[in-house]
Amino acid sequence: MQEVAVIGIGQTPIGERWEKSLRHLAYDALKMAVEDAHLNDAGIQKPDALFVGNMLAERLSDQAHLGALIADFAGWRGIEASTVEAACASGGAAFQHAVRAVASGYVEVAVALGVEKMTDLVGAPVTNGLATASDAEYEQIHGITFVALNALLMQRYMYEYNVPQEAFGAFTVNAHKNAVNNPNAMFQKAITIEQYLHAPMIAPPINLMDSSPICDGAAAAVLMPLEMARSFGIAKPIKVLASASAIDSLSLHDRRELLFLDAAKASAEKAFEQAGIASNDVDLFEVHDAFSIMAALSLEASGFAERGCAPLMAQDGAFGIEGDLPVATMGGLKARGHPVGATGMYEIVDVITQLRGEAGKNQVKDAEIGMAQNIGGTGATIVTHLFAPA
Amino acid sequence: MQEVAVIGIGQTPIGERWEKSLRHLAYDALKMAVEDAHLNDAGIQKPDALFVGNMLAERLSDQAHLGALIADFAGWRGIEASTVEAACASGGAAFQHAVRAVASGYVEVAVALGVEKMTDLVGAPVTNGLATASDAEYEQIHGITFVALNALLMQRYMYEYNVPQEAFGAFTVNAHKNAVNNPNAMFQKAITIEQYLHAPMIAPPINLMDSSPICDGAAAAVLMPLEMARSFGIAKPIKVLASASAIDSLSLHDRRELLFLDAAKASAEKAFEQAGIASNDVDLFEVHDAFSIMAALSLEASGFAERGCAPLMAQDGAFGIEGDLPVATMGGLKARGHPVGATGMYEIVDVITQLRGEAGKNQVKDAEIGMAQNIGGTGATIVTHLFAPA
Repeated sequence: MQEVAVIGIGQTPIGERWEKSLRHLAYDALKMAVEDAHLNDAGIQKPDALFVGNMLAERLSDQAHLGALIADFAGWRGIEASTVEAACASGGAAFQHAVRAVASGYVEVAVALGVEKMTDLVGAPVTNGLATASDAEYEQIHGITFVALNALLMQRYMYEYNVPQEAFGAFTVNAHKNAVNNPNAMFQKAITIEQYLHAPMIAPPINLMDSSPICDGAAAAVLMPLEMARSFGIAKPIKVLASASAIDSLSLHDRRELLFLDAAKASAEKAFEQAGIASNDVDLFEVHDAFSIMAALSLEASGFAERGCAPLMAQDGAFGIEGDLPVATMGGLKARGHPVGATGMYEIVDVITQLRGEAGKNQVKDAEIGMAQNIGGTGATIVTHLFAPA
Repeated sequence: MQEVAVIGIGQTPIGERWEKSLRHLAYDALKMAVEDAHLNDAGIQKPDALFVGNMLAERLSDQAHLGALIADFAGWRGIEASTVEAACASGGAAFQHAVRAVASGYVEVAVALGVEKMTDLVGAPVTNGLATASDAEYEQIHGITFVALNALLMQRYMYEYNVPQEAFGAFTVNAHKNAVNNPNAMFQKAITIEQYLHAPMIAPPINLMDSSPICDGAAAAVLMPLEMARSFGIAKPIKVLASASAIDSLSLHDRRELLFLDAAKASAEKAFEQAGIASNDVDLFEVHDAFSIMAALSLEASGFAERGCAPLMAQDGAFGIEGDLPVATMGGLKARGHPVGATGMYEIVDVITQLRGEAGKNQVKDAEIGMAQNIGGTGATIVTHLFAPA
């Protein structure tokens, strides 16, 4: 197996990007990533392969076949390209496929892209689209939306562990605080715990401030064999230490245990084993805080918190930039934004930024190992990546 | 790079499978493939990864997230799973990702599955869904359907090369003849050239008999390192000689040359180079005859026929089971059927069947190297695989 390095990253600002179509968002992120990788200086005109993470374009934009569409729009005719989908874990899954393509030797230079356009629709409503991440025959059929599924989890969590709503607010306050210094974040604005507690209710107990926004964005990374990166004298190659994922049932009713993400545990454990590290070796964690309950469940199943304890640890500041395990360091899904199929790539780009020491005011000190975890559905697909400077 | 072998295959009958849902079709193919691979005899309870090729489920069945859904339904919790989409080339692309996962060493036992459910819809009409393979902003917007795009190609081909409609019928007659002996084919019935010539016109000059059917089906293959297959004493492992793909513009108007599939040429040449062979070493070719014009263009760009000559060669019998290069040996997309996202896997399963010598009355004599080519859109994504007995 070839060792794989990330040598370039790019991302667009996240928001309601009415002025940019899906292909233009993708192009912007690709252009930045390729320039950041200095591919042209190395005499490389185009990558060998493009892996596109996307969930909703076929439904919302009447556009399947994004691999070829975007590769061609980038001027890369003749390369290989395809789309990878795993609901909200599509970005992480696309990156994983890119890692294997390079590690196998079939591909030298690969680009992983996550892109999602959730505004300016020609197709069905976004909420119906997002619901396709859940089981059509056992969950959607009852009319339950995605936020409602998460609300069931949060309600049960608060009851089982006797955790007050307020504790979940600590995730939101932290995410917004970190987004203030991220020029690509959708909400570059701090909020107080009082604002959290008075936010409009969406699906009790989930309120507006527990929920990540519907938005547009694209993020990308350029990968090549580590040895090749070294021979090109790439300034700060970041090594892929682990690339792992695991699945569970889509339906909540069919899980082994409602409040424990078996797939997060399996995915994280595979990743730790590949990297030869333990959970406490991780210096920062880009957590999938699509809803604050999902951040708590991810932290607990991945070995960073005991069951029922993650929200209280958040209240104690454990997950702040100066805390034991900084999470959502550039704003997370809550405040940076959650363009669903792109999110996994934003998480990875944020980790790379930290490990390069380029996170500015949000820089995590002495960050040596970074982890990104991307979740599809209510925990049915969980993709975990570990990185370190080479 | 690890050498990769296919050790098991499975396929469901293709047709209007009203009695089977998408997940049940997938399950049937997976069960057959895993049993055919004798995984249990080797002490393997489940694969490490599942790669699902599918194009339309999110739109037609309100179901994204098929990787986790199907892996869980197969009883494989904890493994990794994702969906790969490249329009009608989704099946071939999923297989390609599976090959890299095994070749890289990240995964030992992988399963590639193609599945499509085009009847019994809850979502938008099939024709609109298929159109998402073309460019939404430059082609669909004008209301053009997929068959109409192919009709433009066929019309121009007949004009440029002065080829009569009748010549294209030879592809159809051959496909139907071969399907007679395939119990999984949708149309197990021979047709005459007169029947072809009197078929109802769909989008001139494409008639009903130039067109592959809308249908349901699933096909799967089990992959593992060749060395591992040998250590388990697998009876007839088939080696993956090459796995390559290439893209072109989605839009026909944007192609370098309208009647030449640049991506087929690039994809085939990459594959021949990987395998260290030339086009005339290929003993059989599962061609992507979604429309008879597409069969002609694929054969010409892949180096099997001069420009403008493929239909005339078909008339001369070059592509029959006893011909120079047998194509569509089990009925092809035209008569075996074309459940779009599954088709690439059916093509691969047919090649494996031939190379194992298990094709019964349709067995190609002395078949040593088989090729499968899966096409997305009107030629924007082209995936080519080469196989040989190990």
